[in-house]
Amino acid sequence: MATVTALELAKKQKEISVAEFFERNKHILGFGNQTRALVTSVKEGVDNSLDACEEANILPDIYVEIQNGEDSECKLIIEDNGPGVVKKQIPHIFGRLLYGSRFHAIRQSRGQQGIGISAVVLYGQLTTGKHARIISKIKPDRPAIMNEIAIDTNKNRAEVLNEDTIHWDKPTGTRIEVSILGDFKRGKRFVYDYLQSTSIVNPHAQIIYREPDGTEHVFERICETLPRKPSEIKPHPYGVELGTLIKMAKHTKARQLNSFLKTEFSSMGDRTTNAVIEKAGLEKNLNPKTMTRDQFLALHKAFKKVKIMAPSTDCLSPIGETLIKRSLKHETQEISPEFIVTASRPASVYSGNPFQVEVGLVYGGKLPKDEPVKLLRFANRVPLLYQQGGCVITSAISSIDWRRYGLNQPSGKGIPTGPAIFLAHVSSTLIPFTSESKEAIADVPEIENEIKLAFRECARKVQQHIHKKVRRAKTREKFDLITRILPEIAKKSAHMLNKPVPVLDPIITKIMDVVWIEDAVEYEEVPRPMVQTTLTGETESMEKKGGTITKSRILVVNYKQTPQKFNLYALIPEDAIVGTVTPKPSKVTDRFIKWNLDTIPSASKVDVYFELAGLEKGDFDENELYVENINPAYVIGADKWEGD
Amino acid sequence: MATVTALELAKKQKEISVAEFFERNKHILGFGNQTRALVTSVKEGVDNSLDACEEANILPDIYVEIQNGEDSECKLIIEDNGPGVVKKQIPHIFGRLLYGSRFHAIRQSRGQQGIGISAVVLYGQLTTGKHARIISKIKPDRPAIMNEIAIDTNKNRAEVLNEDTIHWDKPTGTRIEVSILGDFKRGKRFVYDYLQSTSIVNPHAQIIYREPDGTEHVFERICETLPRKPSEIKPHPYGVELGTLIKMAKHTKARQLNSFLKTEFSSMGDRTTNAVIEKAGLEKNLNPKTMTRDQFLALHKAFKKVKIMAPSTDCLSPIGETLIKRSLKHETQEISPEFIVTASRPASVYSGNPFQVEVGLVYGGKLPKDEPVKLLRFANRVPLLYQQGGCVITSAISSIDWRRYGLNQPSGKGIPTGPAIFLAHVSSTLIPFTSESKEAIADVPEIENEIKLAFRECARKVQQHIHKKVRRAKTREKFDLITRILPEIAKKSAHMLNKPVPVLDPIITKIMDVVWIEDAVEYEEVPRPMVQTTLTGETESMEKKGGTITKSRILVVNYKQTPQKFNLYALIPEDAIVGTVTPKPSKVTDRFIKWNLDTIPSASKVDVYFELAGLEKGDFDENELYVENINPAYVIGADKWEGD
Repeated sequence: MATVTALELAKKQKEISVAEFFERNKHILGFGNQTRALVTSVKEGVDNSLDACEEANILPDIYVEIQNGEDSECKLIIEDNGPGVVKKQIPHIFGRLLYGSRFHAIRQSRGQQGIGISAVVLYGQLTTGKHARIISKIKPDRPAIMNEIAIDTNKNRAEVLNEDTIHWDKPTGTRIEVSILGDFKRGKRFVYDYLQSTSIVNPHAQIIYREPDGTEHVFERICETLPRKPSEIKPHPYGVELGTLIKMAKHTKARQLNSFLKTEFSSMGDRTTNAVIEKAGLEKNLNPKTMTRDQFLALHKAFKKVKIMAPSTDCLSPIGETLIKRSLKHETQEISPEFIVTASRPASVYSGNPFQVEVGLVYGGKLPKDEPVKLLRFANRVPLLYQQGGCVITSAISSIDWRRYGLNQPSGKGIPTGPAIFLAHVSSTLIPFTSESKEAIADVPEIENEIKLAFRECARKVQQHIHKKVRRAKTREKFDLITRILPEIAKKSAHMLNKPVPVLDPIITKIMDVVWIEDAVEYEEVPRPMVQTTLTGETESMEKKGGTITKSRILVVNYKQTPQKFNLYALIPEDAIVGTVTPKPSKVTDRFIKWNLDTIPSASKVDVYFELAGLEKGDFDENELYVENINPAYVIGADKWEGD
Repeated sequence: MATVTALELAKKQKEISVAEFFERNKHILGFGNQTRALVTSVKEGVDNSLDACEEANILPDIYVEIQNGEDSECKLIIEDNGPGVVKKQIPHIFGRLLYGSRFHAIRQSRGQQGIGISAVVLYGQLTTGKHARIISKIKPDRPAIMNEIAIDTNKNRAEVLNEDTIHWDKPTGTRIEVSILGDFKRGKRFVYDYLQSTSIVNPHAQIIYREPDGTEHVFERICETLPRKPSEIKPHPYGVELGTLIKMAKHTKARQLNSFLKTEFSSMGDRTTNAVIEKAGLEKNLNPKTMTRDQFLALHKAFKKVKIMAPSTDCLSPIGETLIKRSLKHETQEISPEFIVTASRPASVYSGNPFQVEVGLVYGGKLPKDEPVKLLRFANRVPLLYQQGGCVITSAISSIDWRRYGLNQPSGKGIPTGPAIFLAHVSSTLIPFTSESKEAIADVPEIENEIKLAFRECARKVQQHIHKKVRRAKTREKFDLITRILPEIAKKSAHMLNKPVPVLDPIITKIMDVVWIEDAVEYEEVPRPMVQTTLTGETESMEKKGGTITKSRILVVNYKQTPQKFNLYALIPEDAIVGTVTPKPSKVTDRFIKWNLDTIPSASKVDVYFELAGLEKGDFDENELYVENINPAYVIGADKWEGD
């Protein structure tokens, strides 16, 4: 075999356009087979619409329709009431990969890559040879624009094949129609699951979905407020790579090192900036454009040596524990699980990107006992349906020893088996997806660690829950015994001795020797007031006006021999609105209500009552109660208050 | 909150360069953390070198060195004796993403994307701010070129910062030096594993690896022949998407439909071409450039209606069962497993891309019994170290019920637990990796199915093996009993009756009533002849001259009462060279040796012997024997010959 020379090989060297690359590697974008391609297409379209509406501060109204052609050709229609797209941008946004508005902005959004929706157009063209049709209207008083576009994959540019202005009833919005090869029969369940899960964690969106046979599903809007809009932030010094730092310095408008640091990075106030420059042994007025590699290296090292405040987390928009609980309730409607617990971690940072983890866990009921637990994964409010095995959420859960929590897990590793559902949501300014199909999160150690911590917290809550239940059950048994048998004995003895039946309360109290706290929760439906569409205050959290009032009744009985005086705390969901509270509380925050209870005489009781609005029936179904200024060992039904 | 208009949003729309995209999403390329980044860098460099050498028909000599700087900066040097890169191409190949020679060629190669090596340069620049240094020499009588390059990520183009000609001893070759952030302490084991596994499945390569502390590992070349070079093929009609078909027709030089089909596709001879055109209801002399979408659609449908020959598989270069066995032996050196079985599937096709699956299975010995089985995954001769959970190999194995094969597997799904190692190799003209980091294969149903079939075949062999072992053990017990006790009884009886001891052979034969076959394998080391570096014949398979002679001795004893005459088959590895064979065989192929055994009288035996060269000690350690023209129920130690 003769050797082949470099010159001969050089002739074969060629540029590859990014569109060509993904056309060949369509599975990387989530179009690996026709089932998945259908689901991915719906997902990219809907995510895009949700992002657009939220960016424009519009409550999303989304319409999804799938029509079935022959030979598994599907026509997919996705329509929104978003701001629309200006004419010049239509070919770029829908017909060009790696083009978009969210890549360069550091804040939480569903799309980050500028690939999703144009990939659907590319896949449609590849598999059906048909062009995509885009309709966009940007002002109520203007006609809509219609574009038919194709992608020239050799150049990664759109060709506009047909253009028109048309009448469209909507004030503003975007509609995309693409024909793709898709397997509706197999994909049906996944499309529905995706839309349902999306609707649960995006309660401010209304989604109408029409299947090929005309069946229409309406996922109602149940919250008239947009989630707090994540704000855009600058990169954080801790996460910036040396190469990026050099590149930023090349492009900055700042002429001096200190203003460069202050204007281009987050968390860099005067004091921090000066400290960093001093640690690096540099001058404040150095021109960033003329700095040497060694100077950048010194600066980069100085970042790590100075304590810099974590980036602000208002670039994130977590789901919230109430919505997570609701999502899990929804999943387990007909299963009546024993309990649902949730945990939310404080925001953290990986490579300078803020992120936050929230988790939930459902246990028991009719969930299957000998199957692997079900995982529900979300990233930036988008459900992740595929690639479970390759996701950091899976590996984090697999690395926890679940055997002590009553789940089966050979060798203490891997997905446990047992009657449970685990939910995890990661929100971040940059979700490190393992591929462009955005189906799994890469194994970033910081994220894995936070997921583990969150699930451990859940697991502890599970243990506490079980512990409290067991303790309460034992005490109740004792209590029942005493209150049933003692009076019998007293009556008989009195009768035999011909004496009056004695007052037993002090005796019962002596035997019980506890403060007994129990609670009940009920709901009342109230008429919904007028929908408030204009809202004030960007920091206002998601809320629902009217609807359900959640009523909590807490009974406190002093079965101790001495009068008791202590403080009682009841935790409340962050997004609940507190109504009537009796007796008068001493403090109400967005996390708890606190009462300084007046002295309760021995064998007496106190009724505590409060109302919550802004929740759905079942969102809050059991009180978490804590006590202060009393030995918690004497209290049944509440734990020790560990501080705010 | 006021709504934001499309015009305001339009201002934020921006192009994203592919280099910028991957700089931000470096985890997608396998640079998610510093351990992985180090392993990925070595892998991309070595894969690139192997591809280059093989393309140029040069036996690869590869040198890898890692130097440790401070703050986990590593300098990585990878050098090969390949054809070198012409000066003009250096900046493109090493400093530009999506540029290369292998993307547009349909044949098996390690690199396919034109991303790998330039991604290493990009990552190095991003994390250390240093430039990559490339040295290339393309002719023995010319000096080498040295280029220092950086990547302008906004444009995805290389900048050559420094250029020189230097003296280099090598006749031809390429050397790359990149500084990266990498965690050698954690990555050490993975780098070694990767190089070792690579060396095992690429026995034609020599790899020298120097660690930061100066430790040098030499992975010796043990085979002086290059693997058969995969040939380039044209796309197969079954896999071509409608959109690609239309695009191909746009760019073809052919002026008529029939010549278009014959020249641009594989497996399209005259008859098939005519059949397709007729089925599509089209004319032969139609100009492909002027065809309508409906005509293309008809043509595309016609492809599926006509039986078209599978694409030629000489574009593939599988590892071969011997190498797989050797790889598994290597993994289990100190574990003395019970047995190793392998299976190789015929080539198949997904979306028009030929692919082939080979698998192996090791069982027993000192392998841990209560841990998940270990998986070894390979794609196009490259070991896959990460993303096991997201790989189709994992899901295929997980979907088989392994409980019947003695492995533990709750609910018959998931990675089984038990003393076993599973190996799978997928070779293809286009491995559908789940991401650009090439760590996991996507769940393409055709590939999943072939992997399942291959492992089922392995599992059947395991069962056969166990069955044969049990049957032979039982017979041997009976045999031992008879040959020990019968003579005793005979002796005693004869003594008591004062008669001569009878001849027992016929009686033993009557009781045994089988043909007994047993074998032994031994090895002899012979001096290695001169290394043959020039080799002929592209179709010659991998082989090793000299070295070890494998000697097989087969003993056939007729314990039946009548003379027996039958055919005996011994399977041999495809890449073995047959030496001395006695008695004279009636047929020798690359799969088996066949003997028409002369009539064997009752209670007589025949010795069969053969030698194999071209194998290493242990490659062949047990005969697989088959018999023909005899009732296999009477034979112990061989199965029924089912045909060639």
